[in-house]
Amino acid sequence: MKQDKSIIQSLTDTDFYKFTMGQFVWKLFPNVNVTYGFKNRTKEVPLAKIIDEGQLREELDHARTLKFTNSELHYIGGTFEYGNRMFSEEFVNFLQSVSLPEYLLEQSNDGYRLEFSGPWHFAIYWETLALSIINELYNRALTKDMTNFQRNLFLADGMVRLGKKNKEIKRFRDLFFSDFGTRRRYSRKHQDFIVGALVEEFSETKQFLGTSNVSLAMKYGVMPMGTSAHELFMVTAGLNDGSDMAMQGSQNQIFEKWWEMYGYGLSIALPDTFGSAFTFKTFLREWLVKWKGFRQDSGDPIYFAQKLLFLYKKHEIDPKEKVIIFSDGLDVGKIIKLHRDFSGKIRCTYGWGTNLTNDVGTPPLSLVVKPIRANGYNLVKLSDNLAKAIGRQEDIERYKKVFTYDETFFEPCTY
Amino acid sequence: MKQDKSIIQSLTDTDFYKFTMGQFVWKLFPNVNVTYGFKNRTKEVPLAKIIDEGQLREELDHARTLKFTNSELHYIGGTFEYGNRMFSEEFVNFLQSVSLPEYLLEQSNDGYRLEFSGPWHFAIYWETLALSIINELYNRALTKDMTNFQRNLFLADGMVRLGKKNKEIKRFRDLFFSDFGTRRRYSRKHQDFIVGALVEEFSETKQFLGTSNVSLAMKYGVMPMGTSAHELFMVTAGLNDGSDMAMQGSQNQIFEKWWEMYGYGLSIALPDTFGSAFTFKTFLREWLVKWKGFRQDSGDPIYFAQKLLFLYKKHEIDPKEKVIIFSDGLDVGKIIKLHRDFSGKIRCTYGWGTNLTNDVGTPPLSLVVKPIRANGYNLVKLSDNLAKAIGRQEDIERYKKVFTYDETFFEPCTY
Repeated sequence: MKQDKSIIQSLTDTDFYKFTMGQFVWKLFPNVNVTYGFKNRTKEVPLAKIIDEGQLREELDHARTLKFTNSELHYIGGTFEYGNRMFSEEFVNFLQSVSLPEYLLEQSNDGYRLEFSGPWHFAIYWETLALSIINELYNRALTKDMTNFQRNLFLADGMVRLGKKNKEIKRFRDLFFSDFGTRRRYSRKHQDFIVGALVEEFSETKQFLGTSNVSLAMKYGVMPMGTSAHELFMVTAGLNDGSDMAMQGSQNQIFEKWWEMYGYGLSIALPDTFGSAFTFKTFLREWLVKWKGFRQDSGDPIYFAQKLLFLYKKHEIDPKEKVIIFSDGLDVGKIIKLHRDFSGKIRCTYGWGTNLTNDVGTPPLSLVVKPIRANGYNLVKLSDNLAKAIGRQEDIERYKKVFTYDETFFEPCTY
Repeated sequence: MKQDKSIIQSLTDTDFYKFTMGQFVWKLFPNVNVTYGFKNRTKEVPLAKIIDEGQLREELDHARTLKFTNSELHYIGGTFEYGNRMFSEEFVNFLQSVSLPEYLLEQSNDGYRLEFSGPWHFAIYWETLALSIINELYNRALTKDMTNFQRNLFLADGMVRLGKKNKEIKRFRDLFFSDFGTRRRYSRKHQDFIVGALVEEFSETKQFLGTSNVSLAMKYGVMPMGTSAHELFMVTAGLNDGSDMAMQGSQNQIFEKWWEMYGYGLSIALPDTFGSAFTFKTFLREWLVKWKGFRQDSGDPIYFAQKLLFLYKKHEIDPKEKVIIFSDGLDVGKIIKLHRDFSGKIRCTYGWGTNLTNDVGTPPLSLVVKPIRANGYNLVKLSDNLAKAIGRQEDIERYKKVFTYDETFFEPCTY
């Protein structure tokens, strides 16, 4: 059957945070139109020369035919790991009507321009699906001239690497991690293999906490992992464009509404959209007290952790009760280094992405799909690493002023 | 792996009504101890001579090792088909602690005495699991000397029969049915095959409504079907033993509480525990108005439907708005006959059991697991067919008087 060959076979083959954010924007921002843009940060790779446009369209078109199945709606509606009934009956009803909006695809300088526009609460579901499709088509293209044996050898090599990683991780029984690699995976099948192997390998030590991939969390009965993403802050800052004060205030409004909707269960703040320094200055003390912690997603993780420890201490909050989720370009060396440096001082967990699910031999790409316009306003992300900044240069400069951004950290994204 | 060979691989490989009733008794009858007893109504088959006791113990013991998985709890908690959040967060939490209580097994006159005792809200989960185990062991024993080819031929014959049934059913596009065959299935694998085939075969006409098997509803994304069973009425009548009036009133108390817990979504009444005649006399008019309808599970279905039509008309209720679910020993001939006779007069659906999931060649058994004692009181079921009556003869006679039972219908159960 044709369907079996398609890369995306389920709308839940995406990250859990698409649903936590999905409900949030469906409820609070029903009238916002967002355009998401695809960006290849690995500029030296001419994607349009490698990935066939017809195949890309075929995969995107197939994803548009999908609807949430009955069992998937049960799963989402029945989520209990983050506290009380986090998804409302009304939201689950709404999901029954969801299918992916149209896309715009064209070639531009050996690359692809790919955009998704629509009401935020529909367009939000494209992100990781589009990234998974492009990554898998890329890897298929790179391996298409291989013999079956060569391709198997390739995966065997990935398996050997995974074995080594597991052995390293098991040396630290208090080191807990999750799979965050849906968007960057080598292939759907490979991520499935990785998660299945981790469930088995860490069944005794319980160090593997779960996966961000909802389909795989369902399949393997592990915890669906997720927090929130930059898009929430990018879109709402954009909607307030024109008033510096309103833009500055928009981030805390999101934090406030997020707590109102999800409470302690999902209270991990992502602080780096406009620089963590701004967030650490403006995040209220009472929130520091009650929120679980923060996610570190760009810049120097050691510097970040030190700043955060300092912040908690300044407010006389015991950081041992708090959490950092490291999720930026991790590999086993970085994980162990961070764990050695900080695990006695603050609770650390690791959202392991590309290097977990796309470590088989082909050089991974650094791809993102981010919102670029909302109700006509251009959007911006700065992050703690200017190599990850998104937006028109003039807007980036403007946002730097508004958010008193003075980082100079710049490190090209290898993935 | 050994586990793969076990008959029961999941606590959700059971009928959906075990959960609707499970929550009901967990909430309302937390202090009731119930003993369930296995009964082979196909008396001429000496089960203990056919099924090895060691194998039976192994399968029962394996079922006792099972717990609900994370994904299964999501599924149950997320059930949305019958209205608002039918399973509470507290109940789903409780399910995390459930495992099957001990069993008592001994041979007695070439048969097995098999009983399950414990708090009602734990022991309730044994019923269909035990029945599925015994049926599958029986069929394995009957086919153990066959060659692989013979066994495949056997299943091929079952497939041909299913093809004929589907063709017959498709002649009536307004005929809708469900799979109710978990407890009587030929094997787990065979029921899985049947449900998968029905999903595919009726994908256009939508005549296959769903399955009572929760695992398979999950797997195939179809509706989990279920209502309630005799045990609710048997146990509560037993708890009121000693007072005729309290016993008579106990059934309506269950109907009342059931509506309070589940409302319209699950408002299908099972009237035959102590004879449908008694229920049709005592069921309040306002309930006739608001409840969806009734399930017919014993006696003459035509007589039942006529009596019910008469009842609705007497109360000036349009029966075309009401439902009968026929679920007693159906085959395609009976289904079509009932459909022809009644489908213009009242909405009819069909819960198809043994003849759907155990129609491959071996003669099916008529096995049940029913409550026999509750907090020390002996229990009784009369039903509309005295061949299906359960209880000690003296208790049966007593119950007949209490519930003014005067049916004489008696038809041996072929399945």
